[in-house]
Amino acid sequence: MKNKQVLLAARPTGAVEESHFRIVESEIPKAGEGEFVVRAHYLSLDPYMRGRMDEAKSYAANAELGAVMVGTVVGEVIESHHEKFKAGDFVETRTGWQEYGVSNGSGVRKLDTTLVPLSAYLGAVGMPGVTAWIGLNEHGKPKAGETVVVSAASGAVGSAVGQLAKLQGCRAVGIAGGRAKCDYVVNELGFDACIDYKAGNLDAALAASCPKGIDVYFDNVGGAILNSVLNHMNAFSRIALCGLISGYNDPDALTVRNFRSFLVNRIQLRGFICSDHMDLWRPAMKELGEMVHTGKLKYRESIAIGLDNAPAAFIGLLNGKNFGKQLVKLI
Amino acid sequence: MKNKQVLLAARPTGAVEESHFRIVESEIPKAGEGEFVVRAHYLSLDPYMRGRMDEAKSYAANAELGAVMVGTVVGEVIESHHEKFKAGDFVETRTGWQEYGVSNGSGVRKLDTTLVPLSAYLGAVGMPGVTAWIGLNEHGKPKAGETVVVSAASGAVGSAVGQLAKLQGCRAVGIAGGRAKCDYVVNELGFDACIDYKAGNLDAALAASCPKGIDVYFDNVGGAILNSVLNHMNAFSRIALCGLISGYNDPDALTVRNFRSFLVNRIQLRGFICSDHMDLWRPAMKELGEMVHTGKLKYRESIAIGLDNAPAAFIGLLNGKNFGKQLVKLI
Repeated sequence: MKNKQVLLAARPTGAVEESHFRIVESEIPKAGEGEFVVRAHYLSLDPYMRGRMDEAKSYAANAELGAVMVGTVVGEVIESHHEKFKAGDFVETRTGWQEYGVSNGSGVRKLDTTLVPLSAYLGAVGMPGVTAWIGLNEHGKPKAGETVVVSAASGAVGSAVGQLAKLQGCRAVGIAGGRAKCDYVVNELGFDACIDYKAGNLDAALAASCPKGIDVYFDNVGGAILNSVLNHMNAFSRIALCGLISGYNDPDALTVRNFRSFLVNRIQLRGFICSDHMDLWRPAMKELGEMVHTGKLKYRESIAIGLDNAPAAFIGLLNGKNFGKQLVKLI
Repeated sequence: MKNKQVLLAARPTGAVEESHFRIVESEIPKAGEGEFVVRAHYLSLDPYMRGRMDEAKSYAANAELGAVMVGTVVGEVIESHHEKFKAGDFVETRTGWQEYGVSNGSGVRKLDTTLVPLSAYLGAVGMPGVTAWIGLNEHGKPKAGETVVVSAASGAVGSAVGQLAKLQGCRAVGIAGGRAKCDYVVNELGFDACIDYKAGNLDAALAASCPKGIDVYFDNVGGAILNSVLNHMNAFSRIALCGLISGYNDPDALTVRNFRSFLVNRIQLRGFICSDHMDLWRPAMKELGEMVHTGKLKYRESIAIGLDNAPAAFIGLLNGKNFGKQLVKLI
């Protein structure tokens, strides 16, 4: 029995390739005093990880070259010398892209899997769901009857944004890549409309889908889509800026050309990350967990099998090839 | 006795030229029932007027081709059939670029000139001062010890922003064009530093003047200066977006290249105009008037003499040739 790990082998200068990662095997770690060992069941793959591969300053520390790639897993405690965690506990922990990891309990969350499936704690009831909840409620502040637009609408964050907006009485309009994702967003998730940005003529599509303009834009992508959305924002509208996936490989793609709209329409823009609001995680997870349990919040997962497939799955995620929350199943 | 007027003769496609205006004389108007006639003493010239000359949608209606240019004056009521305004009252009114205008009292403010000079109601105690007050207090929300940067720092709005920030215990750093303006901003207005953007190397100058980074940016100009400022914004910093004068003639100049900073630093940006907050005008004007009266708020005026010189003065304003609040003296 070995511990398979994915290391950051090189920092990408543009698109991420499998050669930027190196897969190795090491001994399964032992827990020291005050520590415990987690066997990961699922690794979460998220767009933010692209930023960790860079050297540029971001909101969190970079992944170190030659070290295990940073990331969050859900799994089971298999050995413990920690008073608050015991073998058999299910937990969420940031032990990274590896099958086994040691923790001292810092930042680890115990998970109740009686009502919510374990993997959902990496998606609808985890960081992506909480991100949707915080961005929409704290920064978007939609009112019933308003129009909420979200990009990457079939993804883990976007799908929750639109469903939460619908429950608040808003018109929810998604933007996603391809007919299949758009059909899912409307037919399965219950959005009012979803625009296929790959079909071209985004401006006309936004005008048609948002006849009263846009009051809240929850942005996961930036770039060309943001530039089009800015043409349709209403006076006193809000933009919750959650991600800029369109520019992770090419910062020039993020250029904003219609900045005048921010002044003319008195737009409020707020960049945010979910860890800025740790006080809101508990109420958000409680609400999201109940919604998942009662079927009010639906989600979809793309599951790659085994750590060997994690780099390819991550590259696919950056190129929009996933459909729903991207996970790697490790057990 | 005639009423000299400046009409909008043509809409500019790029830079404003004198040929876009036409100066005419008409009869001095008469007040009908419920109306009064104002003889303007000072006409205010403001950057926002550039937007009114365009056909493009903005936050207020355009000036009409062939009509008197829109604008605010302060002056004296010389004839009245209105129960609330009588001859001899000093008022602020939006009768535009002309010597005499008729009003029905809508939106007209009576002015007390016993403690504050009449012209100040177009500057430090008028729209520019109130704009500074609202943008800084409502959207910038500076805390003592924070660094506040303002562009167009020697202008009517910018000069008030920095002085208000200093009174709140902040470090105030201006950006202005040329050594004379910068000296004035530091030596007369009491800012901690002022950067001459025409001297080049704005990034290095910002780093030197803002050793703890920037917490609040009050932006009057957009464009290249905003792009540099974005490199120095702190986590959880705020941008009060008040004007985009660098792009009024060339929207491409407003392109934002470092949009990623909004996410990485979780910046809050808010576009605003002072008329969105009419409830705040009274407290703002009261505080600003007391500050002018007691010498805590200093200001400077650039005064053109006579309406014939208004177009040239306005063009100079758009090119940063004014030094302080630009007025046209009409009497």
